[in-house]
Amino acid sequence: MTNLKLRVKLSFQQTDALERGRLLVWFPMRTLEWDYERAELRMIDQRVLPARLDYVVCADVLSVAEAIRNMTVRGAPAIGAAAAFGLALAAFRSHAFDPAGVKDDVRVAAKLLADTRPTAVNLAWAIRRMLAMLDQTFFNTEKLANCLLAEAQRIADEDVETNRRMGLHGAALISDGDTVIHHCNTGALATVDWGTALGVIRMAHDQGKRVHVLVDETRPRLQGARLTAWELEQYGIPYEIIPDGAAGYFLRTGRVQKVLFGADRVAANGDVANKIGTYMLALAAKINEVPAFAVFPTSTIDLNMADGEGIPIEERGAEEVLSIEVKGQPVAPRGARALNPAFDVTPHPLIAAWVTELGVIYPPFFDNYRSLHPDS
Amino acid sequence: MTNLKLRVKLSFQQTDALERGRLLVWFPMRTLEWDYERAELRMIDQRVLPARLDYVVCADVLSVAEAIRNMTVRGAPAIGAAAAFGLALAAFRSHAFDPAGVKDDVRVAAKLLADTRPTAVNLAWAIRRMLAMLDQTFFNTEKLANCLLAEAQRIADEDVETNRRMGLHGAALISDGDTVIHHCNTGALATVDWGTALGVIRMAHDQGKRVHVLVDETRPRLQGARLTAWELEQYGIPYEIIPDGAAGYFLRTGRVQKVLFGADRVAANGDVANKIGTYMLALAAKINEVPAFAVFPTSTIDLNMADGEGIPIEERGAEEVLSIEVKGQPVAPRGARALNPAFDVTPHPLIAAWVTELGVIYPPFFDNYRSLHPDS
Repeated sequence: MTNLKLRVKLSFQQTDALERGRLLVWFPMRTLEWDYERAELRMIDQRVLPARLDYVVCADVLSVAEAIRNMTVRGAPAIGAAAAFGLALAAFRSHAFDPAGVKDDVRVAAKLLADTRPTAVNLAWAIRRMLAMLDQTFFNTEKLANCLLAEAQRIADEDVETNRRMGLHGAALISDGDTVIHHCNTGALATVDWGTALGVIRMAHDQGKRVHVLVDETRPRLQGARLTAWELEQYGIPYEIIPDGAAGYFLRTGRVQKVLFGADRVAANGDVANKIGTYMLALAAKINEVPAFAVFPTSTIDLNMADGEGIPIEERGAEEVLSIEVKGQPVAPRGARALNPAFDVTPHPLIAAWVTELGVIYPPFFDNYRSLHPDS
Repeated sequence: MTNLKLRVKLSFQQTDALERGRLLVWFPMRTLEWDYERAELRMIDQRVLPARLDYVVCADVLSVAEAIRNMTVRGAPAIGAAAAFGLALAAFRSHAFDPAGVKDDVRVAAKLLADTRPTAVNLAWAIRRMLAMLDQTFFNTEKLANCLLAEAQRIADEDVETNRRMGLHGAALISDGDTVIHHCNTGALATVDWGTALGVIRMAHDQGKRVHVLVDETRPRLQGARLTAWELEQYGIPYEIIPDGAAGYFLRTGRVQKVLFGADRVAANGDVANKIGTYMLALAAKINEVPAFAVFPTSTIDLNMADGEGIPIEERGAEEVLSIEVKGQPVAPRGARALNPAFDVTPHPLIAAWVTELGVIYPPFFDNYRSLHPDS
């Protein structure tokens, strides 16, 4: 049994019983964590939150690939870290007798993981970083596996640190009393810990600024209504969930000061691929002169992509659109068809600034990024 | 028992068993119909479609008001006709002994009905038209009631005729092979019969043009996924449901030739109040040079409203946003908050043309409307 589900004893009754407010920044663990005793990867099952807090244990690379594909783990940075640990797992579970054989197994696993989801570039970035370790010479398979694990752990730890730095840079953009619209989930759950765009909101809140969040529910998978609302409850940050189509109404009636979202891949010219719906949100923000900030680590930047047109957009199954129910009844008619592009591209003129761990980067994005990061 | 539910024998199994295609333009009845034997108003219960085809019978004005408020009947033209029949019901059920007393009861009922939903102006328009009948002198209460019923029936019959004329004018704008995005439900169900924006699509299809519809699911009440998809199945028109936030993706990638929606109130300058999400859709259409057509009867035009800023926007309950489930589990965390504006205003520069029963009206809207309709 490679994919073991553990029901955790802490129920929401108990978490609700805890005092609400700033003290209750309660997370049971990182979004994904290596179990050093069992040499397994353990992750929060994001498909069943907020109804249940379950964990999925991945004991081999196949179950990591499946967890990425079926969105047990999601969010570009979290996917990258999951793939890195997946490659460590491939080494630990390899049947090869010598380091060369293990390296072959890791390369096969890398191909498998790279093919799970096409849009987020952090996945490819993390895999590339892991594969670079294979250039070293290893004298036994155990040293190789441990070296890969150490790199995966560095990727995970750096992600948390990167997020905190993004949070500090981004929080400087938030004013006391701001109402912000946030799309999808970019919190602790989308990363190893802390979050990107939601990490900015969280940092501003921790600094004592009053921030109010309008949470785009983010159809079809409802990461906003499910995960962002749940995180905001944990952090004690005031919010309301809104239908994605209502964002324009709030922007046009002057009730919003900032728009924040993450990114799955950023092209050299500054175009941002992100969760479906981001483009319409950023457009409505621009027209209403509300700045839209894309918050992401520099590992999300793909300089091989001149602009957003070339970024592959994942088409997911129709059932994600059709599976919602009201009072136990399916909404769409029997046999209904649906289209489900998972991402869209927001052209760079709609983005007020990038918020990265290196700082806030304004247009022209590529030039200003290069001046902060000369070796890019 | 004033609000009697009748389960109809025809199930979807049976309707599915009928031949699909152009012959199957099968509707069991108009959206709402007067029962001349019982002097009651019978309407399709739009809250339970497409899972069940139920009817609600309203035997007094209170149950009509409740049916409008809880969206048993919805769609600006259908609401107008329902209110007209509601005033006839008020006359038929009046306990007054003389016409003056009945007129008083009808005026009280008119106030009650006018307050049910604030945004759609067809409601006020139909009520005004009914109240104008009270200026006549009646020699007995029965004549008064029958006169009101006749006027309500005229409003209903004219709506169907108006829709067919709109359909003909609008279908001329549709080219063979067009893919159109349609927002909310504007079909037979939103009107007495035939439909406004969906009526245009239906007419083009009946004329033998190939039309493909991308159906905005239209959160929070999902009128697109529920009702428009169901109607398109009946008419044999090909479609896919899309999340509202995905419309921009399809517009930007050049896969859409027209955008169509209805209207709940149109201001003198051409601003259109319509179902929440219309503004973001029209904006994405405009930026991508795809024409967006608002299709509505001239009874939706409110010349007392100089522009859209003054149109009251109904705020509905949070439970409409929070009540969706996946696999029987609620999506949002327990105690989550939501905001639910039911409409938004699309500024007139985003509207390519009005499609009305008088013809297609291009900007400048007010001047061109006046030249078609000089007594306005």
